[in-house]
Amino acid sequence: MVKIGIITVSDRASQGVYEDISGHAIIDTLNDYLLTEWESVYQVIPDEQYLIESTIKQMADKEKCCLIVTTGGTGPAVRDVTPEATEAVCDKMMPGFGELMRQVSLQYVPTAILSRQTAGIRGKSLIVNLPGKPKSIRECMDAVFPAIPYCIDLIEGPYLEANEEVIKVFRPKAK
Amino acid sequence: MVKIGIITVSDRASQGVYEDISGHAIIDTLNDYLLTEWESVYQVIPDEQYLIESTIKQMADKEKCCLIVTTGGTGPAVRDVTPEATEAVCDKMMPGFGELMRQVSLQYVPTAILSRQTAGIRGKSLIVNLPGKPKSIRECMDAVFPAIPYCIDLIEGPYLEANEEVIKVFRPKAK
Amino acid sequence: MVKIGIITVSDRASQGVYEDISGHAIIDTLNDYLLTEWESVYQVIPDEQYLIESTIKQMADKEKCCLIVTTGGTGPAVRDVTPEATEAVCDKMMPGFGELMRQVSLQYVPTAILSRQTAGIRGKSLIVNLPGKPKSIRECMDAVFPAIPYCIDLIEGPYLEANEEVIKVFRPKAK
Repeated sequence: MVKIGIITVSDRASQGVYEDISGHAIIDTLNDYLLTEWESVYQVIPDEQYLIESTIKQMADKEKCCLIVTTGGTGPAVRDVTPEATEAVCDKMMPGFGELMRQVSLQYVPTAILSRQTAGIRGKSLIVNLPGKPKSIRECMDAVFPAIPYCIDLIEGPYLEANEEVIKVFRPKAK
Repeated sequence: MVKIGIITVSDRASQGVYEDISGHAIIDTLNDYLLTEWESVYQVIPDEQYLIESTIKQMADKEKCCLIVTTGGTGPAVRDVTPEATEAVCDKMMPGFGELMRQVSLQYVPTAILSRQTAGIRGKSLIVNLPGKPKSIRECMDAVFPAIPYCIDLIEGPYLEANEEVIKVFRPKAK
Repeated sequence: MVKIGIITVSDRASQGVYEDISGHAIIDTLNDYLLTEWESVYQVIPDEQYLIESTIKQMADKEKCCLIVTTGGTGPAVRDVTPEATEAVCDKMMPGFGELMRQVSLQYVPTAILSRQTAGIRGKSLIVNLPGKPKSIRECMDAVFPAIPYCIDLIEGPYLEANEEVIKVFRPKAK
């Protein structure tokens, strides 16, 4: 069974001060996108770097999630440390994801440049930081998801099939 | 009183070989933008990494500047070390600033990709590298300034008010 | 004599499993672009980080290549380590090259964000990672080459003259 990790990083959501709309928005979007059956591994944690790191490691190494998406903690505030945690546990960084997400969000708000989102690879898992706001999540996922199944092929993960009517994923033809 | 640091990094300007047009262009632009009263903390220094670092630290930690802008030293030449100095003293990096400034400058000159400008946060100060050329300074400031007051809100700095007729800054509405 | 290094990073091409089309595409493109006479220093090596590093160092420090271009090894797969090798041997990084190449490639394929290409400076050499696919190589070179001769001027390399009918390079006018 294909597993995908969803990590909501938020002091307030983790304390139950408000509902985790963002995490559920990611799960809904992935359900929309994917024909392949998948199982979510879902956690809501506070903005603590060591906790974000250990949660990513757990989902990558133990749960064998091929994709791990985070939401929250990518801004400039002192408690925003998701990109630092991501970089600390990744073998290699994928700068193109953050660049494209910021570019897309810039069409909506000039504060998109404050988002420090990144992505990277740990073993056979792709980790992608998404923004915290539900509206921006879908915009960003629509932008980067077309490249994700092929990325997972390249890191020897499972073959993900997407619903072409919802999202067009791209795989280059074999040489 | 709101304080903003302006650091001109230039061997020649610091030796008095030529006038610091760039630093003054930044001060003029900020005067254009801001309704909030502010005071400049202004230095012209040579392209020495330790000096750039100590000047940023002084302006952030002692002078409590909420914003520190540098000009110069972002190219590929051996003496260009402003981005390295900035990264060395920042707690977190803000890659979106450099990306957007290069993108904007690319509309004018293909050599915009040679600019290594970045931005970052140190404590409660936002540090932004601007290019060295006066003309490019205004282009870059017009592009990134709309996000700066909200960034300073998020790092718990003073509330900056801008002149809407000159520059439209953006603050998302509270949830 | 101006020297330019071309490094094809590919396990299979280095074993002779297939011909190195990409390396030859780079040489052909540079022949198209340059009026200045130049000599290629050409190597095909496997995807080993220490080998990529030592080859770049050799071409920069011993061969005095003013420009070193690599092809291959920039994806997310476990053997793709060209950007890491490049960063390890460079004095300063040039993020604008990777950003622009990804942006240009995004016009063709959404998987362009999987490319981790970067560029940097080592001494008086500019090192630029190009993608592995021959078709993408020309697209990327057309995008970034206009800035390369001026970059080499700035790092005190030789003056490269390009064929204006093929590629328009840009040098800002002296102040």
